[in-house]
Amino acid sequence: MTSVKSHISISLDGFVAGPNQSLENPIGEGGMRLHEWAFETDSWREQHGMEGGDPSADAEVADEVVQSVGAYIMGRNMFGGGHGPWDESWRGWWGEDPPFHTPVFVLTHHPREALAMQGDTTFTFVTDGIEAALGQARAAAGDGDVMIAGGASAVQQYLRAGLLDELYLHIVPIVLGSGARLLENVGDPSLEPIKVVASPAVTHVKYRVVR
Amino acid sequence: MTSVKSHISISLDGFVAGPNQSLENPIGEGGMRLHEWAFETDSWREQHGMEGGDPSADAEVADEVVQSVGAYIMGRNMFGGGHGPWDESWRGWWGEDPPFHTPVFVLTHHPREALAMQGDTTFTFVTDGIEAALGQARAAAGDGDVMIAGGASAVQQYLRAGLLDELYLHIVPIVLGSGARLLENVGDPSLEPIKVVASPAVTHVKYRVVR
Repeated sequence: MTSVKSHISISLDGFVAGPNQSLENPIGEGGMRLHEWAFETDSWREQHGMEGGDPSADAEVADEVVQSVGAYIMGRNMFGGGHGPWDESWRGWWGEDPPFHTPVFVLTHHPREALAMQGDTTFTFVTDGIEAALGQARAAAGDGDVMIAGGASAVQQYLRAGLLDELYLHIVPIVLGSGARLLENVGDPSLEPIKVVASPAVTHVKYRVVR
Repeated sequence: MTSVKSHISISLDGFVAGPNQSLENPIGEGGMRLHEWAFETDSWREQHGMEGGDPSADAEVADEVVQSVGAYIMGRNMFGGGHGPWDESWRGWWGEDPPFHTPVFVLTHHPREALAMQGDTTFTFVTDGIEAALGQARAAAGDGDVMIAGGASAVQQYLRAGLLDELYLHIVPIVLGSGARLLENVGDPSLEPIKVVASPAVTHVKYRVVR
């Protein structure tokens, strides 16, 4: 049975990106600090074609979150390329061999032909809403899970709509002060912590969304 | 060596009290949901003169957070009794035998004579600021620690001033949506998770504040 999941790094004060997000600084000022824990791990580095890193509790989490994924869904901002109609020279932040290796469905208001990238990543642009995107992602995922990759708005929309089964937060011990909040405009979901992984760098808490 | 500590229950979206705090509802609408995990424990119930409850991982935390305390500091709102000059008939929310059993220093702009309660709790009203209150609390605590009891503003002030050594968050898997935030106007403290206790109800993470 396909689960709909999300995992995301969040500051202790609730931000998943810093202030003043831009093309030059897509996760906002200070936002990169949210992800440093992953950059240190051997598993994340391997996923991104890099050598080195450490086999740690954090590395096991970075591995776990990609294991069962059959398809991704992401918001337009996460795919990037600015607002409005597409500049078709923009093919995502990740180069010609993106680290997804599955179908990826991009939520957008502007139609665009699908992109087949190297390494089995495809980007399909969905203009008819989050439920349509989820239907396509479920079909593409086969026995795998659907991962809502981000950003904040995409996760919020699926959580608010009652379509998310699991939310795995990587709680980073920093205070960003401003930026994009994850848990606003999501209603009052019932969440149950089902797994906790502690490391010196970050506290990973996986929540089941109770129906 | 006396440490300066705080422990506080916080919603997943960062609130330590719900909206519309009032004399009738001092922790705001929905705010009581932050504390239900403690009410279930045998240790919290014993501290408050009640029977029953469960000996759980949460109970060990509820016991741990009172063990080494030599003195408390709290904000005026937490002591209660409204704003402005004191109505001296107000002797706190807790009756004549409050659950502190140590000296308690109340931050206020309005002078008042100290109150000696039953069970070795004393309330001393400090009008000359957080550092003065901490000096008095350190002196009173002896070999014990000073616990900043709350509310949000008192914890914020000590954290921002670099006077807090440990912050123990009880992260409750609820979304309050609005209310009093803990981690705003606190600057950019360096925090290091040093202990994590996981339970089905709440995730307890103790942070050391790094100087």
